[in-house]
Amino acid sequence: MIRESYLYREIHEQPKILNDLLKQDPGDVERLALALDESGISHIVIAARGTSDNAARYAQYVLGALNGLTVALATPSLFSIYQKPPRFKDALVLGISQSGKSPDIVAVLAEARQQGALTAAITNRPGSHLARQADHVIELHAGEERSVAATKTYTSELAMIAVLSATLTGDDGLLSAVKAVPALVTGALAASEAAAQAALRWRDMDRCVVIGRGFNYATSFELALKLKELTYIVAEPYSSADFRHGPLAMIQRGFPVILAYLLCNQRPNC
Amino acid sequence: MIRESYLYREIHEQPKILNDLLKQDPGDVERLALALDESGISHIVIAARGTSDNAARYAQYVLGALNGLTVALATPSLFSIYQKPPRFKDALVLGISQSGKSPDIVAVLAEARQQGALTAAITNRPGSHLARQADHVIELHAGEERSVAATKTYTSELAMIAVLSATLTGDDGLLSAVKAVPALVTGALAASEAAAQAALRWRDMDRCVVIGRGFNYATSFELALKLKELTYIVAEPYSSADFRHGPLAMIQRGFPVILAYLLCNQRPNC
Repeated sequence: MIRESYLYREIHEQPKILNDLLKQDPGDVERLALALDESGISHIVIAARGTSDNAARYAQYVLGALNGLTVALATPSLFSIYQKPPRFKDALVLGISQSGKSPDIVAVLAEARQQGALTAAITNRPGSHLARQADHVIELHAGEERSVAATKTYTSELAMIAVLSATLTGDDGLLSAVKAVPALVTGALAASEAAAQAALRWRDMDRCVVIGRGFNYATSFELALKLKELTYIVAEPYSSADFRHGPLAMIQRGFPVILAYLLCNQRPNC
Repeated sequence: MIRESYLYREIHEQPKILNDLLKQDPGDVERLALALDESGISHIVIAARGTSDNAARYAQYVLGALNGLTVALATPSLFSIYQKPPRFKDALVLGISQSGKSPDIVAVLAEARQQGALTAAITNRPGSHLARQADHVIELHAGEERSVAATKTYTSELAMIAVLSATLTGDDGLLSAVKAVPALVTGALAASEAAAQAALRWRDMDRCVVIGRGFNYATSFELALKLKELTYIVAEPYSSADFRHGPLAMIQRGFPVILAYLLCNQRPNC
């Protein structure tokens, strides 16, 4: 039954969509990277909601660690409630939205454009309101996403952020590493049955925490969001550093904790 | 019994501490405001953990809405895990920490200073490692905080952020409004018994969400953190906008929701 759902189909479309996306002409990303380089911009403000906001969290770490950029997540309420937008002087303002329709995200880009700031959009809809406010549009080419829970557009957003980061470094090794991702996603999907088996143990859980850090801080947020949207359990994301700094108190034996970590070179946290 | 706890005492010290703090010579804040004005800085990066990170969230909105500044919350993992600090060019880097001891927060300030960026600290310990890395030190004068759950230092941090914002605007009306806060805190504490009565209804709750937005987005985070630290329940903070964007699905009849809202002039969200 689950195999017939849009969600299941879209999850399994990811390797092909990522592969096709990474074979596209990278001209749009290269032009944005060039504009960033030439302007000497070192601050990025990202406007996004929900799943795309988690892609923004990934951007915060990857563009920080690999490109030395400081990345602020925009506070759309400054626009929608207080009508007091900040000054975007010397910043790139980047909107991330699958649909490109979210009015408060569009409002941030429109304000940035009016202030003369450099603007860009990462979206699945190049003809959207958001795209029309952007100097640079990076299209996701993910096809229509019919499930309410975003999957293939999330991983496509991450891929394009990684490509932007690698392009800015000029490091071909990084770009090759990104291009190896679709095959790794295929490998991860092959573990679906094992994951389903493991999930049986926890099918009655009504709350959990999800811990990640660094590049996988975004993963912990996105995993928690998916659990909430799809299973209605209370799942709260944390960085391991913040978790130790207080909330650890709420954990007792048997409390479900999900770790969103990548182990590489025998070192955690990388 | 509860009346004898450090926590209870420190909560009730707040009106006096805030009142004394707001009567201090504001020279330190004025010098920081002047340095910001003269440098033309429009980006602030704040490094903080736990409760102080929630004060940073407040700063994000108040310095954005009233002073047009973009505020990024620092990602200390970039320093502690990846050893790849971003460039702080043209930014004020502000550390907020009661103790001024947290090594990763100190590391952010030290890096900023080495890069030649303007640095500042808001701390209860002017002799701390953090303060020593800061060009400008704003002291909280809150006395020793013995409870593990921060209360008086949190509200003191908020007060100094509000004073900084008001000083930057040069609007005496705003400064007067901040100075009226200690009396309002006294009024709020007078509702303690009523709050204790209301809490009885929920003493068996094991999870809840806390919703706030704009200036009170920080309040929702801090309220959720206090519930987790002190009662071990799973309390998750949300902006109302993000909450509608997915997680709303997990709510059903009887699910506890706490609203951290201020109603003013008959308008919510302000």
